[in-house]
Amino acid sequence: MAKEVTKRSENYSQWYNDLVVKADLAEQSAVRGCMVIKPYGYAIWEKMQHILDGMFKETGHKNAYFPLFIPKSFFSREAEHVAGFAKECAVVTHHRLMNDPDGNGIVVDPEAKLEEELIVRPTSETIIWNTYKNWVHSWRDLPILCNQWCNVVRWEMRTRLFLRTAEFLWQEGHTAHATAEEAEAEKTRMVNVYAKFARETMALPVVVGHKSPGERFAGALDTMTIEALMQDGKALQAGTSHFLGQNFAKSFDVTFTNKEGKQDYVWATSWGVSTRLMGALIMAHGDDNGLVLPPALAPIQVVMVPIYKSEEEHNAVLDKMYEVKKALEAKGHSVEIDDRDTLRPGFKFAEWELKGVPVRLAMGPRDLQNGTVEVARRDTLEKISEPLEGLEERIIGLLDDIQKNIYNKALAYRDASIRKVDTWEEFKEEIEKGGFLLCHWDGTAETEAKIQEETKATIRCIPVDSAVCMEEGKCVYTGKPSHQRVLFARSY
Amino acid sequence: MAKEVTKRSENYSQWYNDLVVKADLAEQSAVRGCMVIKPYGYAIWEKMQHILDGMFKETGHKNAYFPLFIPKSFFSREAEHVAGFAKECAVVTHHRLMNDPDGNGIVVDPEAKLEEELIVRPTSETIIWNTYKNWVHSWRDLPILCNQWCNVVRWEMRTRLFLRTAEFLWQEGHTAHATAEEAEAEKTRMVNVYAKFARETMALPVVVGHKSPGERFAGALDTMTIEALMQDGKALQAGTSHFLGQNFAKSFDVTFTNKEGKQDYVWATSWGVSTRLMGALIMAHGDDNGLVLPPALAPIQVVMVPIYKSEEEHNAVLDKMYEVKKALEAKGHSVEIDDRDTLRPGFKFAEWELKGVPVRLAMGPRDLQNGTVEVARRDTLEKISEPLEGLEERIIGLLDDIQKNIYNKALAYRDASIRKVDTWEEFKEEIEKGGFLLCHWDGTAETEAKIQEETKATIRCIPVDSAVCMEEGKCVYTGKPSHQRVLFARSY
Repeated sequence: MAKEVTKRSENYSQWYNDLVVKADLAEQSAVRGCMVIKPYGYAIWEKMQHILDGMFKETGHKNAYFPLFIPKSFFSREAEHVAGFAKECAVVTHHRLMNDPDGNGIVVDPEAKLEEELIVRPTSETIIWNTYKNWVHSWRDLPILCNQWCNVVRWEMRTRLFLRTAEFLWQEGHTAHATAEEAEAEKTRMVNVYAKFARETMALPVVVGHKSPGERFAGALDTMTIEALMQDGKALQAGTSHFLGQNFAKSFDVTFTNKEGKQDYVWATSWGVSTRLMGALIMAHGDDNGLVLPPALAPIQVVMVPIYKSEEEHNAVLDKMYEVKKALEAKGHSVEIDDRDTLRPGFKFAEWELKGVPVRLAMGPRDLQNGTVEVARRDTLEKISEPLEGLEERIIGLLDDIQKNIYNKALAYRDASIRKVDTWEEFKEEIEKGGFLLCHWDGTAETEAKIQEETKATIRCIPVDSAVCMEEGKCVYTGKPSHQRVLFARSY
Repeated sequence: MAKEVTKRSENYSQWYNDLVVKADLAEQSAVRGCMVIKPYGYAIWEKMQHILDGMFKETGHKNAYFPLFIPKSFFSREAEHVAGFAKECAVVTHHRLMNDPDGNGIVVDPEAKLEEELIVRPTSETIIWNTYKNWVHSWRDLPILCNQWCNVVRWEMRTRLFLRTAEFLWQEGHTAHATAEEAEAEKTRMVNVYAKFARETMALPVVVGHKSPGERFAGALDTMTIEALMQDGKALQAGTSHFLGQNFAKSFDVTFTNKEGKQDYVWATSWGVSTRLMGALIMAHGDDNGLVLPPALAPIQVVMVPIYKSEEEHNAVLDKMYEVKKALEAKGHSVEIDDRDTLRPGFKFAEWELKGVPVRLAMGPRDLQNGTVEVARRDTLEKISEPLEGLEERIIGLLDDIQKNIYNKALAYRDASIRKVDTWEEFKEEIEKGGFLLCHWDGTAETEAKIQEETKATIRCIPVDSAVCMEEGKCVYTGKPSHQRVLFARSY
């Protein structure tokens, strides 16, 4: 019997955990808050990396690698940054173990205390800007457009697989520019790269916008975000891009001679997405049978299950399957034949549904005779009998169709979940139903904080799509005048 | 003027450092022993990763990700492993910083001490076998063929960029098998993958062999290695593959039900290569003008430098260059046009030589008139004038030729550096000249240790190529009988 998955309607949080663990994406490790990403989950992350990396390179970025450790003193340099980041983190204080003199295994060697403690990077602005200092002298050395794929550690108290873990994998872009305009343009370019990736590859209809000042990255003058909506009506911040002004350049003394021959501080951006995207992917599209993977990210796009009684039937079906597999692989698709002889077809069907494989083909001796095959699509759970003739082209068209359908379904859900709300009574009522509320806000941090206190809702973003939100009105909480609606939601 | 590089004959060690730093591969960071891998260096590492990753997948391996941190107690479990690994490492003892009550920046919060210290992984056998314990129940769950690309930390006292750094990047394969035979075959398969990669991609004529028991990985029953020879006559261990027997399975209690229905411990291998390969690449092929990169790993395979006086000439030359670039890129080659207008062609030539670009094209108005181009190859430093007609095909052929020539040059040097030595007097004399000495050894750890003590030479490996070493003789040090020659050298 296949593994049981909790229904979303029963316990959404348990449903999420079941999908992660039972579909073999990830599991808790022996180290508190750190996860093991299993091969099937890692294969999805690799596809994300590959596609994003290509997009970064197309926009002129190069990869590099900076140290895992950051000297403690670096964090004190940028005042806002230390407040936002340096608190809950892994601190390395010693560099040697030794045999316990009392014979109880091994202990930390007290003689091997570091002069200055090292912090395992929670993000790399400080160490990178300390490095850029030596790379930049004149405007000719700019821009610097670097990205790094790496692990980071933030000592979270409450963790959830992919969504919030002490260690996670991510990419962090760090760019240096001669002018504020260039840096602002870079920040916008990269949030748009993320939005395109989310929409086209992940089938996630994200909203692009600016964070309110209170929700900005520690040290940023502007933070842009892509916000996705999960099926339980909560928002998930899926990627951010920051305009850092000259803050880090000033803290790490990174100056350059501009075209006019004058010294100036360098302008900065940083931007990142992480393995949190895996959480978004699972929660946006999964159903009560398991994962629903967009074909663009599915490690296996097509799985084939042979149906047979005799060895002769088995061989005949397999021969045909290898033919189809070869044809699809030649066009760049990933195909697996599930020929395990100890499991019944029904079990296999349920397992591949749990794992979210977009297309499943089942073929038996009768199909061979009739020149047909049973095609099941994961997104709609429909099954139809298709002629073998011209199958490859139809499968390729079907994968395309599934990718679009998953996106459209999520888009329809999101659009139905965005409501304009104009009174505080209505706000409190509507926020309980989940989704995005488009409301007027008086622009103050006080109001933002009070709304969060009373409803747990935060401003997810001030959308860039002005058609959606540019209008005069009154703050939903204070009634003060407002020139623009912003997007509120409860969030992960 | 181009950056000056120390000559190999003057100071080999400084020459190496000059190449790493001046060719923009890597630099020291603010953190002791940790390096920054710069975009040009990282691009080479990415190419290595990409090709190796393909080879791992072709041989059935999948990538996964395991935690950065390892609980201290895990190291005590495998007795030999702790002796070999757990000593010089980064120890995380706290998980929070706080503002100094005395107002001096930030300090470690004494309240946030971890119950058990965490070690930043120096290698991941322990945490991985602790995980595999839950993945394996029956022979049907085997083999497990996982690889991970990650960073590791070993607190080295004396560091050198790429060759020995506190933090480095690597891949570590960890496999689990039902039988000793299967695990041994896997260990051999993977050392052969490394050898093929070293020879065909890195143009490194490595020697494949077994480590002597004294040089084995901590916890291994057999360690196989690929050994490369650097231009100063020292050997460099470029990759290892270990047969771990049932040691880790026993330490972490990983058992399975075999086909006969009986409980047995799982058999293990592990294998890895690291950013140390970058050091091997630089030292094996570089010359006094800089890097010499094999085309298979060069981030830029062909660089073009336009020569012109008038703007009209400039445009005409550039037009032609873009045409050639497009044609070469269409065939998968990486091409750059160096159109910086503030630098003279001679400066550019020297810079691209320093960076090891395999082929350089220079083209001026006279070339256009004559339908020719100046082609310079980095490996031999030859320059010839070639007709523009059919240039792409000839460049592609030339890249192929350069790849082979770099390998053959290294092979000739290595073969000339392997000498059979049969007396202790001769050994002491010959080892001073560098290179590999093929000698009889009595098979004892005592003799191995004494030879190292007296000459700093170690047994690099017992070659698998039996034609080279299988013969009867007497130990070069003790005169006791020996059935096989082994390879001695001083090493990095």
